Amino acid sequence: MWQDRRLLDLFGIEHPIVLAPMAGVMDTDLAVAVADGGGLASLPMAMLDEAKLRAQVETFRAATARPLNLNFFTHTPPVPNNAREHAWRESLKPYYAEYGIDPAAPVPSSERKPFNDAFCAAVEELKPELVSFHFGLPDKALLDRVKVAGCVVMSSATTVEEARWLEAHGCDVVIAQGAEAGGHRGMFLTDSLASQPGTMALVPQVVDAVKLPVIAAGGIGDARGIVAALALGAAAVQIGTAFLLAPESKVLPPHRAALQAARDDGTVVTNVMTGRPARGFVNRVMRERGPISDIAPAFPLAGGALAPLHAKAQAQGSGDFSAMWAGQAAALGREIPARELVVRLAEEAQTLLRRLAG
Amino acid sequence: MWQDRRLLDLFGIEHPIVLAPMAGVMDTDLAVAVADGGGLASLPMAMLDEAKLRAQVETFRAATARPLNLNFFTHTPPVPNNAREHAWRESLKPYYAEYGIDPAAPVPSSERKPFNDAFCAAVEELKPELVSFHFGLPDKALLDRVKVAGCVVMSSATTVEEARWLEAHGCDVVIAQGAEAGGHRGMFLTDSLASQPGTMALVPQVVDAVKLPVIAAGGIGDARGIVAALALGAAAVQIGTAFLLAPESKVLPPHRAALQAARDDGTVVTNVMTGRPARGFVNRVMRERGPISDIAPAFPLAGGALAPLHAKAQAQGSGDFSAMWAGQAAALGREIPARELVVRLAEEAQTLLRRLAG
Repeated sequence: MWQDRRLLDLFGIEHPIVLAPMAGVMDTDLAVAVADGGGLASLPMAMLDEAKLRAQVETFRAATARPLNLNFFTHTPPVPNNAREHAWRESLKPYYAEYGIDPAAPVPSSERKPFNDAFCAAVEELKPELVSFHFGLPDKALLDRVKVAGCVVMSSATTVEEARWLEAHGCDVVIAQGAEAGGHRGMFLTDSLASQPGTMALVPQVVDAVKLPVIAAGGIGDARGIVAALALGAAAVQIGTAFLLAPESKVLPPHRAALQAARDDGTVVTNVMTGRPARGFVNRVMRERGPISDIAPAFPLAGGALAPLHAKAQAQGSGDFSAMWAGQAAALGREIPARELVVRLAEEAQTLLRRLAG
Repeated sequence: MWQDRRLLDLFGIEHPIVLAPMAGVMDTDLAVAVADGGGLASLPMAMLDEAKLRAQVETFRAATARPLNLNFFTHTPPVPNNAREHAWRESLKPYYAEYGIDPAAPVPSSERKPFNDAFCAAVEELKPELVSFHFGLPDKALLDRVKVAGCVVMSSATTVEEARWLEAHGCDVVIAQGAEAGGHRGMFLTDSLASQPGTMALVPQVVDAVKLPVIAAGGIGDARGIVAALALGAAAVQIGTAFLLAPESKVLPPHRAALQAARDDGTVVTNVMTGRPARGFVNRVMRERGPISDIAPAFPLAGGALAPLHAKAQAQGSGDFSAMWAGQAAALGREIPARELVVRLAEEAQTLLRRLAG
């Protein structure tokens, strides 16, 4: 059925469709549904602790025998910068006043944890079939433990240089993340947003540059994007946003409404929500303080001072201060169960492949 | 051979490959070569006058009986802004001093002409099979004359909204220009660079939004990109940068050297070269005064004050002050004659289509 079986065989899946791990908007419901449809299930760990990691893996394993990818961030924890964090809080003060929030209350701590010894110990014990990283790879000692545990290792590259680096440092599969992608840019060797390549340009150049199998990510929302990615040389696609309309996703109501009203030009890359560049629907704080701000604290600290605003605004049904990550193909999403979406995407891609060849 | 014959039949060409019109770096040599290979030849008119237009069409017609597309810009001529233009000249003064150029010498006038009555009269007389526009469409009176002359009308859309506007205003074919594309962004209903969609996301959304045939542009440098674009629903592709390495192109030596050393992340969108956003290889003035400058004069005035610097630097073999437009797939280009490139791209795309379908 599929011509390129490299990743299907390596992962043990039916269709070359990887669920993007989307921290904060999904849990095992979406992962199990995608696995049952024949795609690769991913679970995002960046906002969890080890106890929740264990609970989610247990839930997943109880529901299905299909393979599982656990995704971790590998950012360096930020160096506190009081002046910058103060400036950021000052710039948000008018919003605090508007919502009647005490600006002197302690800033909530941020929720993104990098891959560490405790996470690694859980991986060694639970042995997910795959582990994927974002923002590079962990230290060699940790990475070696993951590989000894038998996990296939994946990570994101936003440039050819990053793809080559991942190959040289022990990665098994490269996810080529084009500029269209929703969520955090995986960039780790560059901070030049202006030169980030789009998926159409990035994928074939990464395929040419590394021997590893390549997964295409960014702007892929339906069967047309899947076939296009395969034509570019990808062995599979990673899809996130298109699964957010599924009933199994855990997006908050304003995020779901934004997905339902999505247009091609409704997202931008911003650093104001977390401190690192990420693509999402434009909201009030991105419009009024960004999309790129020089004073947004380092990742993930920027999100702390936004948390009380997020809570208040969400209670009023507004996403004005919430990260509503989405890629540029959000409008191609369909509001159907995720299992059905995987099956349909695979069937439609097969049909399109036959039609194109005549 | 090709499944989708809409544009092949409409244009009277063999292969769904359109040569992007690239003002300043090509003339009839490249156009004739692409036509002879079975693609659609385009000639850029934005830097010519009517006499040169006539001469180029005559040369083209003498060389081949294949169809011809004439491309025009449709920008509104800029309103002079002395303060801004002065600030721009002031910011370039250190470079003038470095190159020994008299900063008091008159600023050369810019060379980009919008489509006007004289161009239109030439079109009515010479009847190119196609006329394409960039930055929207000309006034209705001019557009009607082009259509009465029997020319198929094309224009670029960088968003779904622009594609719908073009369809509603009499365009026959939409060129969906993704963010990867080299040269000027065709944007005319938005000035939001941050939300410009990449090709992978833009093309299927434009295809869904309009009934017109769609040409995909941006990040397409080889057969993989062609097949990907067809998968996304495009009826043809427009390729520019990949033809610049051909011996028939007229790129200056620093531009050719940049093409030969191209990487995926070597271009950015800048407004400092002309006043309008365009993608090209990063050079010194883009790095030191841009890539986006608030004081760069309106299109095309920014280029005037750079012209003496361009001339001096080029004489020393440097592109430090020259527009070296290129898209993000520049590294996929091949240094072979353009006719051969068209034939090979078509053959390779056919082979890939068969291979993908199994």
